[in-house]
Amino acid sequence: MASNSDSNVTNRDAFRQAVVNTLERRLFYVPSFKIYGGVAGLYDYGPPGCAVKANVLAFWRQHFVLEENMLEVDCPCVTPEIVLKASGHVDKFTDLMVKDGKTGACYRADHLLKDFCKEKLEKKDVSITADKAAELKHVLAVLDDLSADELGEKIKEYAIVAPDTKNPLSDPYPFNLMFQTSIGPSGLSPGFMRPETAQGIFVNFKDLYYYNGNKLPFAAAQIGMAFRNEISPRQGLLRVREFTLAEIEHFVDPEDKSHPKFPEVSNLEFLMFPREKQVSGQPAEKTCLGEAVSKGIVNNETLGYFIGRVYLFLTYLGIDKDRLRFRQHLGNEMAHYAADCWDAEIECSYGWIECVGIADRSAYDLRAHTDKSGVPLVAHEKFAEPREKLVIVPVKKDLGLAFKGDQRMVCEALEAMSEKEAMEMKADLESKGKVEFHVCTLAKTVTIRKSMVTIAKEIKKEHQRVFTPSVIEPSFGIGRIIYCLYEHSFYTRPSKTGDEQLNVFRFPQIVAPIKCTVFPLVQNQEYEEVAKHIAHMLTAAGISYKIDITGTSIGKRYARTDELGVPFAVTVDSTSSVTIRERDSKVQIRVNVEEVASVVKEVTEGQSTWNDMLSKYNAPQVPDDE
Amino acid sequence: MASNSDSNVTNRDAFRQAVVNTLERRLFYVPSFKIYGGVAGLYDYGPPGCAVKANVLAFWRQHFVLEENMLEVDCPCVTPEIVLKASGHVDKFTDLMVKDGKTGACYRADHLLKDFCKEKLEKKDVSITADKAAELKHVLAVLDDLSADELGEKIKEYAIVAPDTKNPLSDPYPFNLMFQTSIGPSGLSPGFMRPETAQGIFVNFKDLYYYNGNKLPFAAAQIGMAFRNEISPRQGLLRVREFTLAEIEHFVDPEDKSHPKFPEVSNLEFLMFPREKQVSGQPAEKTCLGEAVSKGIVNNETLGYFIGRVYLFLTYLGIDKDRLRFRQHLGNEMAHYAADCWDAEIECSYGWIECVGIADRSAYDLRAHTDKSGVPLVAHEKFAEPREKLVIVPVKKDLGLAFKGDQRMVCEALEAMSEKEAMEMKADLESKGKVEFHVCTLAKTVTIRKSMVTIAKEIKKEHQRVFTPSVIEPSFGIGRIIYCLYEHSFYTRPSKTGDEQLNVFRFPQIVAPIKCTVFPLVQNQEYEEVAKHIAHMLTAAGISYKIDITGTSIGKRYARTDELGVPFAVTVDSTSSVTIRERDSKVQIRVNVEEVASVVKEVTEGQSTWNDMLSKYNAPQVPDDE
Repeated sequence: MASNSDSNVTNRDAFRQAVVNTLERRLFYVPSFKIYGGVAGLYDYGPPGCAVKANVLAFWRQHFVLEENMLEVDCPCVTPEIVLKASGHVDKFTDLMVKDGKTGACYRADHLLKDFCKEKLEKKDVSITADKAAELKHVLAVLDDLSADELGEKIKEYAIVAPDTKNPLSDPYPFNLMFQTSIGPSGLSPGFMRPETAQGIFVNFKDLYYYNGNKLPFAAAQIGMAFRNEISPRQGLLRVREFTLAEIEHFVDPEDKSHPKFPEVSNLEFLMFPREKQVSGQPAEKTCLGEAVSKGIVNNETLGYFIGRVYLFLTYLGIDKDRLRFRQHLGNEMAHYAADCWDAEIECSYGWIECVGIADRSAYDLRAHTDKSGVPLVAHEKFAEPREKLVIVPVKKDLGLAFKGDQRMVCEALEAMSEKEAMEMKADLESKGKVEFHVCTLAKTVTIRKSMVTIAKEIKKEHQRVFTPSVIEPSFGIGRIIYCLYEHSFYTRPSKTGDEQLNVFRFPQIVAPIKCTVFPLVQNQEYEEVAKHIAHMLTAAGISYKIDITGTSIGKRYARTDELGVPFAVTVDSTSSVTIRERDSKVQIRVNVEEVASVVKEVTEGQSTWNDMLSKYNAPQVPDDE
Repeated sequence: MASNSDSNVTNRDAFRQAVVNTLERRLFYVPSFKIYGGVAGLYDYGPPGCAVKANVLAFWRQHFVLEENMLEVDCPCVTPEIVLKASGHVDKFTDLMVKDGKTGACYRADHLLKDFCKEKLEKKDVSITADKAAELKHVLAVLDDLSADELGEKIKEYAIVAPDTKNPLSDPYPFNLMFQTSIGPSGLSPGFMRPETAQGIFVNFKDLYYYNGNKLPFAAAQIGMAFRNEISPRQGLLRVREFTLAEIEHFVDPEDKSHPKFPEVSNLEFLMFPREKQVSGQPAEKTCLGEAVSKGIVNNETLGYFIGRVYLFLTYLGIDKDRLRFRQHLGNEMAHYAADCWDAEIECSYGWIECVGIADRSAYDLRAHTDKSGVPLVAHEKFAEPREKLVIVPVKKDLGLAFKGDQRMVCEALEAMSEKEAMEMKADLESKGKVEFHVCTLAKTVTIRKSMVTIAKEIKKEHQRVFTPSVIEPSFGIGRIIYCLYEHSFYTRPSKTGDEQLNVFRFPQIVAPIKCTVFPLVQNQEYEEVAKHIAHMLTAAGISYKIDITGTSIGKRYARTDELGVPFAVTVDSTSSVTIRERDSKVQIRVNVEEVASVVKEVTEGQSTWNDMLSKYNAPQVPDDE
């Protein structure tokens, strides 16, 4: 990469263009409905893209659902309004939009402001003073926090106009990103296409808890389509209107977030970017996961366990570990109810992209649906011995005097304290007479005095505890992961003659869309029969393959197969034995026809490595014709 | 089953209730959004249902996509209006609806009429004369062909009212079954949730043809969600508003619909129900597929090949071959452009249910999108030698005199004749002076005279042929197949004490949601350690399992696992060896702890049979405690 940022950008764009050209030309994906001019933000996966997606999802099921014994569910996309009202999506799932005053064309307000600032800064406009540059950088930094009014003021101040027509823009206003529809013929039942799969799991909590023998912790998982009616999609596969999500909701006792398998991941080391480092301008740093949890940087073991499992998942798929970091949400990014939240971000030509979100959402979602439906979504812990009951009685009169309109929130927060918190408060109130108390629903800290609450252990004993479980949610944007994987797997190398660059995807076996290709060296019936015989054995072994019997030169056929990321090419150059060539090293081995399927199966399914085969078949050489 | 039809119905309902109760209680599926009162026609698949679905889809991919080298694609559900305008869905994808005049509640007009007739007939209403009964039976037979007016007249004649309120009903009118939405924020781009996945394949024909090396035939396939906003869904999983479709579009030269692999299925024999038998009131009959094709009962080899492959697919999954038939569409059921169409129908407690449609749709779909988009979706055949060109010139003046307003349709049909048809017509016209000619777009036969058309082979030679491929479309309703599979797999047997009936699903290995369960015989740490060790080995071998460490009796735990259709139960009753029990025979073998995973893997993946294991481990006996 060149040293200055301009040519960095150029290189990045050129690299992206090379990747995207290859992907579209080989039908990994194409814009949907192309013959009708296409629809922004909708893409089709063609045969190799489809196979890569199926492979990624199969590995996700193996790595998460099967290995962790998760309960997989499959819920509809069409969702009645009440569910998304309870979850908050009907009221809050919006982006701020501005309209071209004359044509009515719509834009995301923050995108226009971002583009304006970036262009001014990147063009190193000489007319811009150092002060102005600092101001624009500040705007970029706080962009996500700006209100509709603040965004509107900035757009006016910088005289930003519609990019296509230069017409003036409307004030920003919220646009709900859900696709709306109507369920049934009456027109009286509004519905939406789900914007995430999680709600389907939450509303089934009771049944799933029962299915799990009324025991915590357990996790439910769902793979499915989700929909967001983006205002003006861009960035190709990274921001689309319809996408595959894979989500896990791990339900856990809020008083015990330890995880028995945490030791299996605690020694992992990878790039972590905690809140403090972001705020103080330090870079992400290689960190030991066990330390991050024990130091309290990551809130709890279960959250830490999933961060570790996500790291293993992504790197096993072929994501470069040096371009993968776990970034903690800043205070202002995180919902008020969340205990902690980390994004797995992958660096690609568009910058660092959020691909997996891993959040401890506390009891928020189950409480929201309990409130709205009236069905208690709670768990029970039976005590072996009856226990004394904790009683917290807020003194409403004194709280009312002190907090006026906030009284209800403070009361609820006091009542929701865990036993540990309550007993600490009781001790503090007795020794100091007052205590600072954070009320998450107010997002502020208040002072509680001794007169405002009584806390006691009651004589009446309890036989069980009823509580709302916390949920820890790893949520995977499958399309984004796949796109980043494409970029991380792509490279070019010169052709034999050196006059052109050939494209290669170095997909791991598990990801490769097809495991091998079969080429008769020359067009001749004998070789074609052998190729068909091999194909038959590959099918029986469950190995995906493609036969290429065109008369094209073998070098060109190798180039074609490399461009699809196919790990092995079988060339039929005799009727008894054939060569198998490995994609990245281009090294070949010679194998008996009858053994081809088992060799390819063993290596692609991981029972043997390519190196094992090199020693076994002992004839490594790059052929003349490549 | 009892002999009279009343108790048949009762038995059928009782059987269905037993199946559905088990399915819902064990979370194979549940009504969606239950805590909010549910939404008709939407269902969630719980853990075992989800696993069954994943297994069925994986087998579909293996049986069709992999074995036939199909091009799999994955297109969006959100579809712009123009695509569904071209396909005809915007105008014609409707059901006839009536409204309760006072409450506005909506009903399907044909359902109300059907229910009325059935009830009168089934109740053997003594007030009904033989003539009346015959009339009602006739209405049931022609129900699908009735127009809105005819339906409305019958509803008035029989004084049918709204079933819930007894209020009068509106006249029937068409209701479009697509979920409508709006793409993007402008409100100016109407879109629909796709009612089928096929259109996504058709609009990509050009790219897919190129991907296949510009060669025919080839097939594209897609698995995905489809949506139909049913007026009033009933029949549980059989009529839902959102469902998984798996569709194949096999593109073929209309002049050569032979299939090289047809001999592999031509000897299959199964129930076929051709048009003639339906019309003449004969039953479906076991027929040899090869004969059905050679006798022209099935239109062509490629259609026949897919019928055979569908038969193999369904029976391999566990569908009872005696309750599976292939029914040919009657003339009035089939679209005018279709060459032939067969439904795989499966008999369940709801009657014979269409689960797979296999249609030769001729060139209709590709032509419709060619016309609407202006992009020619055609194939090319290069001739080794240049050929004489067939020229058909309709004489518009004479045709106009003879057919008036139909002239254009007749012209187009003449021009679209294949070379074979044209040369036959030429010969007939020369010998007889006139010929009968079927115009499919008019759905009638007309008389063509010698003066109306000239047919010749021109001197000017052609080097290639440009044509619109025919498409043969097998389309699978995955949810319907799975529901029928549940009914065909379900049976009950008495418990050991004989005081209750236990439920069992006899799923084949490939379908079973979990391949084995692991039970420590008694609650004890040593046995639990062994169970965990076995679990670990099963995970490594990729075998899904469930551990049950509750203290429940072993008999009850066997009953639980049978009810999920789990083929093998591993009981840990020592630290060195364990028993493996087969679900249906209840026979056990004793196996070393270290061998458990490989035994289960071999049998469930089909390398060995259970009988092989019985001979190998040679200790078959049913235990005392069951």
